[in-house]
Amino acid sequence: MEFGKNNTPFGQAEFAARLTATKKRMEMAGLETLIVSDPANMNYLTGYNAWSFYVHQCVVVEQNLAEPIWIGRGQDVNGAKLTTVLAPENIVGYSDDHVQSTVKHPMQAVARVLSERGLSGKRLGVEADSYYFTAKSLEVLRSEMPGTHFEDAGVLVNWVRAVKSNAEIALMTQAARIAERIMQTAIDAIDVGVRQCDAAAAIQAAAARGTEEYGGDYPAIVPLMPTGVGTSCPHITWLDEPFAANAGTSIEIAGVRRRYHVPMTRTVYLGKPPAKMSDAAKVVVEGIAAGLAAAKPGALARDIHAAWTKTIERHGLFKDSRCGYSVGLNYPPDWGERTISLRSSDETVLQPNMTIHFMPGIWLDDWGVAISEAIRITETGVETFCDFPRKLFVK
Amino acid sequence: MEFGKNNTPFGQAEFAARLTATKKRMEMAGLETLIVSDPANMNYLTGYNAWSFYVHQCVVVEQNLAEPIWIGRGQDVNGAKLTTVLAPENIVGYSDDHVQSTVKHPMQAVARVLSERGLSGKRLGVEADSYYFTAKSLEVLRSEMPGTHFEDAGVLVNWVRAVKSNAEIALMTQAARIAERIMQTAIDAIDVGVRQCDAAAAIQAAAARGTEEYGGDYPAIVPLMPTGVGTSCPHITWLDEPFAANAGTSIEIAGVRRRYHVPMTRTVYLGKPPAKMSDAAKVVVEGIAAGLAAAKPGALARDIHAAWTKTIERHGLFKDSRCGYSVGLNYPPDWGERTISLRSSDETVLQPNMTIHFMPGIWLDDWGVAISEAIRITETGVETFCDFPRKLFVK
Repeated sequence: MEFGKNNTPFGQAEFAARLTATKKRMEMAGLETLIVSDPANMNYLTGYNAWSFYVHQCVVVEQNLAEPIWIGRGQDVNGAKLTTVLAPENIVGYSDDHVQSTVKHPMQAVARVLSERGLSGKRLGVEADSYYFTAKSLEVLRSEMPGTHFEDAGVLVNWVRAVKSNAEIALMTQAARIAERIMQTAIDAIDVGVRQCDAAAAIQAAAARGTEEYGGDYPAIVPLMPTGVGTSCPHITWLDEPFAANAGTSIEIAGVRRRYHVPMTRTVYLGKPPAKMSDAAKVVVEGIAAGLAAAKPGALARDIHAAWTKTIERHGLFKDSRCGYSVGLNYPPDWGERTISLRSSDETVLQPNMTIHFMPGIWLDDWGVAISEAIRITETGVETFCDFPRKLFVK
Repeated sequence: MEFGKNNTPFGQAEFAARLTATKKRMEMAGLETLIVSDPANMNYLTGYNAWSFYVHQCVVVEQNLAEPIWIGRGQDVNGAKLTTVLAPENIVGYSDDHVQSTVKHPMQAVARVLSERGLSGKRLGVEADSYYFTAKSLEVLRSEMPGTHFEDAGVLVNWVRAVKSNAEIALMTQAARIAERIMQTAIDAIDVGVRQCDAAAAIQAAAARGTEEYGGDYPAIVPLMPTGVGTSCPHITWLDEPFAANAGTSIEIAGVRRRYHVPMTRTVYLGKPPAKMSDAAKVVVEGIAAGLAAAKPGALARDIHAAWTKTIERHGLFKDSRCGYSVGLNYPPDWGERTISLRSSDETVLQPNMTIHFMPGIWLDDWGVAISEAIRITETGVETFCDFPRKLFVK
């Protein structure tokens, strides 16, 4: 794999292609300038990689500029120099008295930089529903840049990310090897009398360790392992309580390599599973097979959902939530990319190197079962990233 | 410790006191209704605890309602029933087609609930600069609730959180024992030739494991361990590269108990540290002592900063960023509470049971040293949560 400047996992050519694709979408949307706040999009366009998204920061893309401009906290400028492919003059810090202040706001500093570089008064896109681009961010920008026309650019850069390069797929393939190890570790660790937190410890360690060849990175979501009645709640996190006999546990994890995620979900039952659960697991496995059969270039995202839904309805089951989403590069709070959703209304045409977490879970009132596969659309069909038994595990 | 309904770590009386204090601040701010989006504030007011903040969700507080109303994704309703102290009628889910959709927005559902319950058309506060309350959230609310007057409530609930109850301090005291173990684990793990990711694995495991008596929870920030030239960048995360001889590593972690954080930072040097670094470490330790001497009820937040600044300036050093912040209950992306900042402009009067991460680090162009203490203002002065050697560690 080609490695870029500053140990980014990609070369300059890849960053140039990403920027070109972004500018093209901006042009189609009639935008001269775009403020990118989503940390994954910031990384995608510049290489920037640090846990600094708890303060306001952004990358500015402008049609006529050869490079984006990184704007963030002064304290993080060194990190930007260390991790991005940007020239030093395109890394700008704001003073620390803007941080969580009642009198100054970092978007004032952003507006100043835009004004100094002649980028105000243009058609300016913002990621209006992006994590970390707050209501106040927009209010401050509007008040500081009165002549500027603001547009919601939506998930414009996220859509550029939806089709991966081969270099990105290579990282996700490594992440898949890590995901398999994490899941095996989880299934080994979860047992009657073991504290949930101790299983979480083993899982977290496996995620960071990765393989002997390459290390793991932190996942954008912590290990989720709802157990017993908790399996009806997909997003609750671990407690101290030990795992009980005769209960199921859903395990949702992701292997991560250089911020690229490959998630996986399995369910493990301690004891003899009730027939309704082992039956549901079989239905889920059947539904995955049906979904995979429907996944290929030219098909629509909703086709996967339809195949899954048809399978479970035949068995009298029903799930009213989406059964998957685009996945790859990300930061907390989500490893989903907020573009493709596997649901009946999503008409996205599937293309080679789209990568999706196909997550068909059934959550009923007091129990649930979930088994998932991260998939890649290939030139002719689909493949799963991981090679891991697709079944209800019983211990 | 009293345990509440649904295994929340607090009893009904504590939740009632929090709600009363919040309503009082709302009244002072002229607000009839408040939409609370900050996951820590949602937990604080209801007990809600799940990794679901990657979709829009909130808790609504209204002066005339005895309980807040939780509004979130339908899939997370079971989690709300399981983790909050709320009556079932005050837990409302929206349908899954609102999630990351291009046509529907969850704030439309929030507006509908408010309207159904007669809460629209009032003076409504929002947390305008809160993580996860996006620019679009406010735009949608404004468009759906035309007669309503929206106000930025700022960090109103965060300020209620600034003074901890004794039950909260008890959890933070447990978190401190976990923090000590994590830091010892980190210092033991970091050595020449050890991959950064393997040290991260040991740290993450220690954080989740906690103690034999009680488990750890996930920290709102992953372990930060910038090494070598990276110590000039406080927020970069681990890579695969092994730790090198003759380099320093800053370790920033937090012990977490039931979402309550006690952070700690230490620096370890592999080899014989250069005089400038061991000298800087001594200055930092001296600065901590000076800051602690200034910390007591009635003193101002800026007094701690002044004592620290005076110390380092005497040694010809300079740090232009805040040297600490309020800490406690939190979720990613930050364990800081966004209220008190130890900086020259912060005139917060210190009160007993305020809890602060006093974080005096020095970051220069290509190296840095950081040593921190989480502190509690007591009735008469201050105490540190952790008992851990305050020095530059040398291995």
